[in-house]
Amino acid sequence: MTRTDPTTLRTAEQFLESLRDDRTIYYRGERVEDVTTHPVLRHAVEHACLDYQMAEEPEYRELALCDAGYSRYFEIPRSGEDLLARSALIEASTRAGKTLVVLIKEIGTDALFALQAMSAVLGEPYAGRINRFYEHCRDNDLAMCVAQTDVKGDRSLVPSQQPNPDSYLRIVERRSDGIVVRGAKIHTSASVNANEMIVLPTRAMGPDDADYAVAFAIPVATPGLTLVASPYLSTKGKSDIEYPLSAPRKMVETTTIFDDVFVPNERVFMAGEYSAAGELARGFVEFHRFTAISYKLPLVDALVGAALLAARTNGLERAGHVRDKLAQLICYAETLRALTHHAAERAKVVNGVAIPDTMLVNIAKLQFAEGLHKALQFVQDIAGGLLVTYPTFEDLDQPAYGAALKRYLVSASHTSGEDRLRVIHMITDLTTGEYGGYQAVLAIHAEGSIEAEKLTILAQYDRERSLEYARWLAGLEPQTWPSVAVFR
Amino acid sequence: MTRTDPTTLRTAEQFLESLRDDRTIYYRGERVEDVTTHPVLRHAVEHACLDYQMAEEPEYRELALCDAGYSRYFEIPRSGEDLLARSALIEASTRAGKTLVVLIKEIGTDALFALQAMSAVLGEPYAGRINRFYEHCRDNDLAMCVAQTDVKGDRSLVPSQQPNPDSYLRIVERRSDGIVVRGAKIHTSASVNANEMIVLPTRAMGPDDADYAVAFAIPVATPGLTLVASPYLSTKGKSDIEYPLSAPRKMVETTTIFDDVFVPNERVFMAGEYSAAGELARGFVEFHRFTAISYKLPLVDALVGAALLAARTNGLERAGHVRDKLAQLICYAETLRALTHHAAERAKVVNGVAIPDTMLVNIAKLQFAEGLHKALQFVQDIAGGLLVTYPTFEDLDQPAYGAALKRYLVSASHTSGEDRLRVIHMITDLTTGEYGGYQAVLAIHAEGSIEAEKLTILAQYDRERSLEYARWLAGLEPQTWPSVAVFR
Amino acid sequence: MTRTDPTTLRTAEQFLESLRDDRTIYYRGERVEDVTTHPVLRHAVEHACLDYQMAEEPEYRELALCDAGYSRYFEIPRSGEDLLARSALIEASTRAGKTLVVLIKEIGTDALFALQAMSAVLGEPYAGRINRFYEHCRDNDLAMCVAQTDVKGDRSLVPSQQPNPDSYLRIVERRSDGIVVRGAKIHTSASVNANEMIVLPTRAMGPDDADYAVAFAIPVATPGLTLVASPYLSTKGKSDIEYPLSAPRKMVETTTIFDDVFVPNERVFMAGEYSAAGELARGFVEFHRFTAISYKLPLVDALVGAALLAARTNGLERAGHVRDKLAQLICYAETLRALTHHAAERAKVVNGVAIPDTMLVNIAKLQFAEGLHKALQFVQDIAGGLLVTYPTFEDLDQPAYGAALKRYLVSASHTSGEDRLRVIHMITDLTTGEYGGYQAVLAIHAEGSIEAEKLTILAQYDRERSLEYARWLAGLEPQTWPSVAVFR
Amino acid sequence: MTRTDPTTLRTAEQFLESLRDDRTIYYRGERVEDVTTHPVLRHAVEHACLDYQMAEEPEYRELALCDAGYSRYFEIPRSGEDLLARSALIEASTRAGKTLVVLIKEIGTDALFALQAMSAVLGEPYAGRINRFYEHCRDNDLAMCVAQTDVKGDRSLVPSQQPNPDSYLRIVERRSDGIVVRGAKIHTSASVNANEMIVLPTRAMGPDDADYAVAFAIPVATPGLTLVASPYLSTKGKSDIEYPLSAPRKMVETTTIFDDVFVPNERVFMAGEYSAAGELARGFVEFHRFTAISYKLPLVDALVGAALLAARTNGLERAGHVRDKLAQLICYAETLRALTHHAAERAKVVNGVAIPDTMLVNIAKLQFAEGLHKALQFVQDIAGGLLVTYPTFEDLDQPAYGAALKRYLVSASHTSGEDRLRVIHMITDLTTGEYGGYQAVLAIHAEGSIEAEKLTILAQYDRERSLEYARWLAGLEPQTWPSVAVFR
Repeated sequence: MTRTDPTTLRTAEQFLESLRDDRTIYYRGERVEDVTTHPVLRHAVEHACLDYQMAEEPEYRELALCDAGYSRYFEIPRSGEDLLARSALIEASTRAGKTLVVLIKEIGTDALFALQAMSAVLGEPYAGRINRFYEHCRDNDLAMCVAQTDVKGDRSLVPSQQPNPDSYLRIVERRSDGIVVRGAKIHTSASVNANEMIVLPTRAMGPDDADYAVAFAIPVATPGLTLVASPYLSTKGKSDIEYPLSAPRKMVETTTIFDDVFVPNERVFMAGEYSAAGELARGFVEFHRFTAISYKLPLVDALVGAALLAARTNGLERAGHVRDKLAQLICYAETLRALTHHAAERAKVVNGVAIPDTMLVNIAKLQFAEGLHKALQFVQDIAGGLLVTYPTFEDLDQPAYGAALKRYLVSASHTSGEDRLRVIHMITDLTTGEYGGYQAVLAIHAEGSIEAEKLTILAQYDRERSLEYARWLAGLEPQTWPSVAVFR
Repeated sequence: MTRTDPTTLRTAEQFLESLRDDRTIYYRGERVEDVTTHPVLRHAVEHACLDYQMAEEPEYRELALCDAGYSRYFEIPRSGEDLLARSALIEASTRAGKTLVVLIKEIGTDALFALQAMSAVLGEPYAGRINRFYEHCRDNDLAMCVAQTDVKGDRSLVPSQQPNPDSYLRIVERRSDGIVVRGAKIHTSASVNANEMIVLPTRAMGPDDADYAVAFAIPVATPGLTLVASPYLSTKGKSDIEYPLSAPRKMVETTTIFDDVFVPNERVFMAGEYSAAGELARGFVEFHRFTAISYKLPLVDALVGAALLAARTNGLERAGHVRDKLAQLICYAETLRALTHHAAERAKVVNGVAIPDTMLVNIAKLQFAEGLHKALQFVQDIAGGLLVTYPTFEDLDQPAYGAALKRYLVSASHTSGEDRLRVIHMITDLTTGEYGGYQAVLAIHAEGSIEAEKLTILAQYDRERSLEYARWLAGLEPQTWPSVAVFR
Repeated sequence: MTRTDPTTLRTAEQFLESLRDDRTIYYRGERVEDVTTHPVLRHAVEHACLDYQMAEEPEYRELALCDAGYSRYFEIPRSGEDLLARSALIEASTRAGKTLVVLIKEIGTDALFALQAMSAVLGEPYAGRINRFYEHCRDNDLAMCVAQTDVKGDRSLVPSQQPNPDSYLRIVERRSDGIVVRGAKIHTSASVNANEMIVLPTRAMGPDDADYAVAFAIPVATPGLTLVASPYLSTKGKSDIEYPLSAPRKMVETTTIFDDVFVPNERVFMAGEYSAAGELARGFVEFHRFTAISYKLPLVDALVGAALLAARTNGLERAGHVRDKLAQLICYAETLRALTHHAAERAKVVNGVAIPDTMLVNIAKLQFAEGLHKALQFVQDIAGGLLVTYPTFEDLDQPAYGAALKRYLVSASHTSGEDRLRVIHMITDLTTGEYGGYQAVLAIHAEGSIEAEKLTILAQYDRERSLEYARWLAGLEPQTWPSVAVFR
Repeated sequence: MTRTDPTTLRTAEQFLESLRDDRTIYYRGERVEDVTTHPVLRHAVEHACLDYQMAEEPEYRELALCDAGYSRYFEIPRSGEDLLARSALIEASTRAGKTLVVLIKEIGTDALFALQAMSAVLGEPYAGRINRFYEHCRDNDLAMCVAQTDVKGDRSLVPSQQPNPDSYLRIVERRSDGIVVRGAKIHTSASVNANEMIVLPTRAMGPDDADYAVAFAIPVATPGLTLVASPYLSTKGKSDIEYPLSAPRKMVETTTIFDDVFVPNERVFMAGEYSAAGELARGFVEFHRFTAISYKLPLVDALVGAALLAARTNGLERAGHVRDKLAQLICYAETLRALTHHAAERAKVVNGVAIPDTMLVNIAKLQFAEGLHKALQFVQDIAGGLLVTYPTFEDLDQPAYGAALKRYLVSASHTSGEDRLRVIHMITDLTTGEYGGYQAVLAIHAEGSIEAEKLTILAQYDRERSLEYARWLAGLEPQTWPSVAVFR
């Protein structure tokens, strides 16, 4: 692969500037003129800046940039070590973002790598376009989002059988210079603050679904493309002191409407190759799940830390049931970390791209998803009822009773009333409000559902070898020594 | 017990009028002049009106009133049937309140009954005062709250050992006409919309803690009493359509400061009888837990209903994993209902007051608390990612893309876009935001913690009989026929 | 219903005598000449005697006999109280049998009641035959077993589609005086010690399956009927002191082969009425599950008792994690008891027969089944590693080191070495060997599988009412007051 | 470290021969003259031979021997790779032993390595003795067992406070040429088939416990040493066809009595250094837990394989609930494998010895222990009720009904009756009888209890760093960028 040296890394300011274009965004039915100054959405944009700011931060520079000088996000992983470095970068940036997912280069590069891994299958002219698009993004240090999930209509029907033919995004016109697409994607993360939108199919398809087998990339400011931003997890009316995690930053998803959008040929990566649709859809999700388990690490660490901090503040660190819950939370967090790192170390290199161990990635994601609600329960249990009955900092400053209130809030560990309130506010934000709910729903649904993860695990397991072993145990195979090869 | 006929049942309007007095309430550091018109707190007050409105509603009248003509809440339960009727009333009123706890007569009467059950232990003059206070509340159809949980300071120390002597509410002066108390209570529910506040000790005490062994009742508008309302679960900025459960109604807890509050003798129910403090504390909590499991029923029903509705809307009602989760949710809900009703039916009548079976009540409460987070997970799983990525009704009405959006949101079950959005908003409100978080924290901490429930269960179990049975099984007892008596 | 007075209650000796007939039983391929003296099977027979001995035991007499003077097992339940009495009888007899299921009149009467409940559907001549057979069993105080589960072959095919036409029991000849049947049933409990075998269909059937829709009753000693006894849970080589539960008693299941067995008309209860097969199959199972949850109570009590005894013996009763496990075990046991009793109390009387609440019975059974392995884990955890590394009583008596060994085994609670060993042996027997395994597999598979219970729960739940409630919460129904009726 | 070349590797026959000495073993109170021919214990001895036979098996040779030519068990791990090789060897030998632990070099070398890691702390003359003893074992290819767990008496008291001074093994005499010890150890695995017994303290000790701080090694045939073998998991009366796992092989634990046993100085490794007792006790257990999680892998693989085989045999491979259970079983097995391997890869090299990551080892062990009973439940669920109601091979061969029985047992997957019976017998052996119970109790109690594992996890976690992170999230630390270092 030829590579142009990056003209420059972008600064956060350059990133912000690049978002001030003709993009069509609506928030609660109102057109957003400038996403960087919108009272709510600007928090999402500012949050995304982290990906650019890291490269300017001396301590992060080595992690944020690869040897070739461009952002490490764009470095195609060639080995388990590269994957570990990518995972560490994602973990560090999410931690810097106070455990809120940071998805402005991660998810887009997941898609770029998945497309590249499919190049051999898709063939020309797609392979060349994919590579050129990759270089374009890398060399201009772009922010990319991915639109994949269709609205789906009746889930028991394939795209071409839907009563509404637009239930899945489809090609409505093929022109000599490109294609025209119509439909809508939901759950499109970080689209309002991206430069480019990569569009991928959401499922396997058959011959009748050829018009639905479509993948491409377009600038977010493309005519006909409308981004309807969800107000969920709004920062509106939240003070930084009461919502230390969710007031100053935001994730935003859009319902993304393609109203006969034209895509020039150079940006079309699949247009009718229905037999490859499923593999591309899965390929992206599998790569993306490794990103997912990496960015979950700061969240599970935060839950352990919150539980420890609450236990110490409340003077409960030695209570038997608290210790038990702490041990379980640590197991939860460290199992996720171990599986994530081990999946990287066990990567398979396919066509030069290192793919983390698919089964381990899915096991990690599944265990995270299945366990998060229990973890939230444990943190709430240790933190106590003040999570939802707290007084406010305005009360602490009130002349009539503020001083008394501060004194009453001093806890066993001599934590001052103010500090105790900060601890409570952080844990309330983390576990009980829209932020906690967002994380909980993401755990279950983002990057594929719990059931999808189980399917993958079942598909990845070497069932015949396992059956052979069981048959040997049952005396149904010759009783020779079993293979020494490590099992799975 | 002599009983004065109720002069009248109060209407909701009379109840509202009664709250317009000199009570000292602060919200975010600002004095609340009239709780019935305060932009946020009025939703709590209006919610509490349900208890009065029910008596005016023909279908509810039989349930809401007892034979003697006053509110059934004040009817001292004499049998399992009375407890079932009380439970049904609490369940019905909470359902009418859309699963938000309704605590304006329930909790107060729990305290009244617990005090009456303790009358024999406390003796005169307390017994007479308790009875007169009960009649006063009943005959004037009053709203009462209960302040029990102290701020506690260092939990490893008893009240008299605390560095801050006011960490537990205490008597600072004994006068001929009454007592003066100082301290603070937290988690005081529904105090802003109560007429009377009943104050109870929070734990067992020793001889040195005599000044902390104090119980009494005072009007909420008593001088020196300050109610600092928590803003958690604020209705501010929430539209009824997006937050159908939590926008139009609210629960409110206060941190309640007693700044040298005078309590006249007639209202003092315990003042130094430290040896009875623990029994009174527990007696109230045990009675209150029966109320708790009764008012949780509409919540668990709502979770089942929400899961069913989401499954039907999403066309997933026949999916294997969805059916499995539905079955588990039904088990969760119906086990709670069965245990609640069975606890009532197995009541013991003590001094004329029917006490629900303590072990069963605690088992019910514990299983509810341990299972709620898992139940929320199941509902979110079935409902899908739109819970946190939804567009809004403003978007549906937007001329540029609203019609398209509505069409895209039509689901498998032919649910219209608008209706689908309503379903999503309800489930988002129920499970992911401050309302869901409030229910989750309440599950764990309200009416005593999970650990307290385990302690009670262990204490209630007939350990020696169980040991005898195990010893008999082990051949360590004479091998005669075991008793036919039903076991526990 | 006309009723003949019982000529007499049978004694255990009469019962034993009645089993010495021409029945064809094989054990490990060898013909069993006399089941009452067979070295292994006699323990099953002796165990079954309990049902007869109880009636002779003064303390049990009231429970064991109904007012009409015959065994209470035969009393058709007319009310919740009758069901509670039946449940108490089953519980008491199982406890007397040291938690091993006692199924010599229980299961048979479950089938008799299910047949009677179906009489109206089956019509004459079946209804009359069923009633006469019921009176025959009752008046002669007979022991009955039930053969229901077919070998099934390929579970994805209905009976008439099976490659092997005998995969389900079927009518191979219809004669004027009766029918001839062929096939095999598995899991037939307690058949070797029964007088009569009641045969029921195992599933719903269609028109092509008419020959498989067959129900009847025959003496166990009928020609062509072969009982192949499973040796699982053999008493062979077990000493009473090491296996206090499973050495002196046994359950036995047979694979039951019908080799062209003739059934006279008077004993045929269904012969081709395929549309009623499913209802009869389910009707029996549902009634039988109530028996099941009743006979599980002594088992769960034994687990609690064993845990308490181990905790006390090991000096761990105050350890935090042990207390936690004890609380959970108590919850497990007492929830099962509460659900069982509440299901009886909520019985519906259908055609004069009281049917326990089907949903609650299934919830009880499901929770028992899902929780047993965890309960076994807790008991093993508290009991310690000696469960599988114990020395023996022979060692305690050994001159060279026995005295030393006894001294070393004295535990914290001053339990002697001998007593400690007895405790260990009982818990080992209860939780780790074939007895524990038997209970574990029964929990999952007996009286219908876990999945069957979930299906029933889903079917019983009032889904539409729940949906209506959820729709009302979501604002999709008129916002009037909801019904006051108690929910489900 | 100087190293003498091994004179020779021992053959299995040489190993057997070496066990025919004066060792004092009792089985059920009777002296065992020759352990290699005892009807029950010989199965344990033969099972242990696997460790020697592997080295003779061409496919295993590379795994079984290290570069220096001696058994790889004796190779001191210097790196994560060495630990992976050791883990692979343990896994392979346990698989060859049909999932029953083969602990005849594993456990002993764990102790040797732990002693060597303690050499610097213990100093001379102990360090030299330890090294010489290690070389002795290695160069003579010996089999070693470890006696650690004392009988403990009252667990709330330290050794010197026990009413019975022999509740912990102690030095009763110090002579110029050695020490004399008295006491008893329980749960001593594989001692009857070992050459040498290594004795270690079981807990931390104080100054008063100096006589209890004792470690040493002695030949099993030392005078005064009595091994009382537990009969649990006896092979007696079991046929290989019905018990394919547990009939031909056995583990055996002894209660090990030290009746004033003399230990020469050269074999004493600790004699009074009470302050090092806890570290040595833990050091061994921690090293041994890595062996434990390695030898559990074939067991969890067997559970997955058994579930798959049962699902296929029963024609249930596509059933939704079966797939769900299979996915969970795979997660259980593969998480254990990933944690085991990752713990090796994250080893710390301390004084030249590679120590697997302690936290990950404990998390792996804890998750295995907590999950095994659930895994057994799933396998039993999929396998069906025939697990405990099966007919026998004798029945299949019975002329009267054998042919019919075979035909009835043919399953959906066309598995023959014989093969189906073999599958059932294997799963019954694996999950329901003494073998399954043995594995279940071992899971909880062997290599330290569940609670001990939680303690270690809590101790290993970097609590202060986690607290700092939580404080930063709460705004209680300067809001600078957090460290990029990977977290724990």
